[in-house]
Amino acid sequence: MYSITISHHFMIAHGLVGTVFGPAQQLHGATFVVEGELRRYALDADRIVCDIGRALDLLKTVLAEFDYRSLDEFAEFLGRNTTREFLACEVHKRLVRRIEEGALGSQASTSLRVVLRENQVAWSAYDAPLG
Amino acid sequence: MYSITISHHFMIAHGLVGTVFGPAQQLHGATFVVEGELRRYALDADRIVCDIGRALDLLKTVLAEFDYRSLDEFAEFLGRNTTREFLACEVHKRLVRRIEEGALGSQASTSLRVVLRENQVAWSAYDAPLG
Amino acid sequence: MYSITISHHFMIAHGLVGTVFGPAQQLHGATFVVEGELRRYALDADRIVCDIGRALDLLKTVLAEFDYRSLDEFAEFLGRNTTREFLACEVHKRLVRRIEEGALGSQASTSLRVVLRENQVAWSAYDAPLG
Amino acid sequence: MYSITISHHFMIAHGLVGTVFGPAQQLHGATFVVEGELRRYALDADRIVCDIGRALDLLKTVLAEFDYRSLDEFAEFLGRNTTREFLACEVHKRLVRRIEEGALGSQASTSLRVVLRENQVAWSAYDAPLG
Amino acid sequence: MYSITISHHFMIAHGLVGTVFGPAQQLHGATFVVEGELRRYALDADRIVCDIGRALDLLKTVLAEFDYRSLDEFAEFLGRNTTREFLACEVHKRLVRRIEEGALGSQASTSLRVVLRENQVAWSAYDAPLG
Amino acid sequence: MYSITISHHFMIAHGLVGTVFGPAQQLHGATFVVEGELRRYALDADRIVCDIGRALDLLKTVLAEFDYRSLDEFAEFLGRNTTREFLACEVHKRLVRRIEEGALGSQASTSLRVVLRENQVAWSAYDAPLG
Repeated sequence: MYSITISHHFMIAHGLVGTVFGPAQQLHGATFVVEGELRRYALDADRIVCDIGRALDLLKTVLAEFDYRSLDEFAEFLGRNTTREFLACEVHKRLVRRIEEGALGSQASTSLRVVLRENQVAWSAYDAPLG
Repeated sequence: MYSITISHHFMIAHGLVGTVFGPAQQLHGATFVVEGELRRYALDADRIVCDIGRALDLLKTVLAEFDYRSLDEFAEFLGRNTTREFLACEVHKRLVRRIEEGALGSQASTSLRVVLRENQVAWSAYDAPLG
Repeated sequence: MYSITISHHFMIAHGLVGTVFGPAQQLHGATFVVEGELRRYALDADRIVCDIGRALDLLKTVLAEFDYRSLDEFAEFLGRNTTREFLACEVHKRLVRRIEEGALGSQASTSLRVVLRENQVAWSAYDAPLG
Repeated sequence: MYSITISHHFMIAHGLVGTVFGPAQQLHGATFVVEGELRRYALDADRIVCDIGRALDLLKTVLAEFDYRSLDEFAEFLGRNTTREFLACEVHKRLVRRIEEGALGSQASTSLRVVLRENQVAWSAYDAPLG
Repeated sequence: MYSITISHHFMIAHGLVGTVFGPAQQLHGATFVVEGELRRYALDADRIVCDIGRALDLLKTVLAEFDYRSLDEFAEFLGRNTTREFLACEVHKRLVRRIEEGALGSQASTSLRVVLRENQVAWSAYDAPLG
Repeated sequence: MYSITISHHFMIAHGLVGTVFGPAQQLHGATFVVEGELRRYALDADRIVCDIGRALDLLKTVLAEFDYRSLDEFAEFLGRNTTREFLACEVHKRLVRRIEEGALGSQASTSLRVVLRENQVAWSAYDAPLG
């Protein structure tokens, strides 16, 4: 199994709903460092998983939707807690949708793992097959 | 698959028995940076794998048993080499036992990976299902 | 010259005022990893710059004032941009005030550097003498 | 499942063939930080996956073949792009061959993952069973 | 004293002349992670050292001259070893020239430190006043 | 001002004397990651601060004296607490002594900074002129 991983970050504000979140119920924020790991069984004719430049651009495009924003203002997230795990999945969904639309060319990746690092002592991930 | 990872460290002294360990047979020590990655298939009602604050507290509680100690003085480890791999498994066992006792609430994690980083060029891990 | 450095993090929301900040004018947030480096010319009788446990507790106490908060709600910061550089200085001020009040015992540090890391590609610092 | 990971780096020059590589078609170079993760189901009698010193020496030996060289001068790679993914696989092959020749003693590892980190925002890996 | 630091990387090929360089006399390459730390005594009216976006763009512009190139082909470096220390100084010179030409607006920084990280065990820096 | 920094690690056991050290009075241990930064005003004829290979070998030689040992068994340290700050200074002394004996050739470095990193949240340094 081959994989490539690309990394970028975004910075958001949000508050979480539920006593389990303690002080994180208050409006606060985070720098999220995101890693996207794309896997496939064999390399393409250029001996790569995919064009790393396009993969990095794709990740930046997806993260730009959230960057420098308050997630509490996203209609789409109304009534849903924007936890690290939830956001890892949302980034995953958006990457998969665009990959399936051809953002990385015709390609044959089988799965994708998205990691969201919030600080040095806590991070989350979502891992699922493509297609 | 979702996961959260929490990280903390502990500092111990020990010596290892067996020529394979070379100079590590002498009494020496290490700072171990530990990462615990807890995985589950679906998020709970709060859209989290588990309460990250409780998970970090749990990891700190488990590591406190070893922190600032000589592992050579642990009756439990008598005649057993406290290698990185062995310790990763011991930390794993303790985390699983407490999780099963309810330390993270009623929860549904399916597996746990524990990494022990000893220095920049060598680390070990133990990964196994829960329950 | 001897020094010790202790590190902790905090997570805040804020918006900045002024076209120079571009998208950072919007309400967003950050994880700030803070390092405090305390310097002195000679060690004390215990051969340390100061009690590292107390120094780390002090840093955590100072950062707790901001952690999980929106800096836009601090009366003290009204009309003042809470940039990384400004915050590095604010953390520095609070550390110095408490050190001078005896938070680290009677001690003889001569200067303090505070670094605020916001993401992997940009960080800020404030460095100034004590007392 | 237990694992140990060892890490070392090497520095090479190369150019890549194909418009997909953009400016990387020019002769340039990279520092590759390599991690090798060796996994097995049970520890040996010394409670280790394998002798970490020998594992690190083995990794260094394998990387020494490439270190401070231009990969474009390797007859073996003629007409083949020495991409990160390809190199991860080449390092993997060499490690497996030597492990099977006994470089780590008689041992029972079941799989090996090799990661090649090129810079902070892009890395590749190859993961495959042994034996 | 306030400072901001911005970071980016570039990837080059080169060979060095002189027996002191051992195997590095051969054509090889490196990923250089560069940090530029800009210092000034007081913040500007926006409470910043300078516009961090422009500073990061400036660093990327300066590094683009070298990125994905063989330094042995630069007429300017003919007969001069492109060591890490030398390159740190060359990057420093280019940053200072453009800052003095107004790339960061009218600004009052007093000194600049440039760090070049080549691998995890060796890095170099050049530090000098501006203007 | 130019500088080069080289890094290596060592692993020791020790206990500290004095109530200020709390649980660190017990026999425990640490992985210390050491950085040595050597500075000089101008480069030599090869355009380097010094031979980085020799500098790294020198650091390894100095650290080998302590590696895989209990510092409590060193006659030289009898009655003296082997704190991080103290050890940073001891490593500094040994590096300076050997540099002055010619370990890096005839060279003109003006100062040396030694950093000892014990864990992710606490490290110490000693910085002093040479010669």
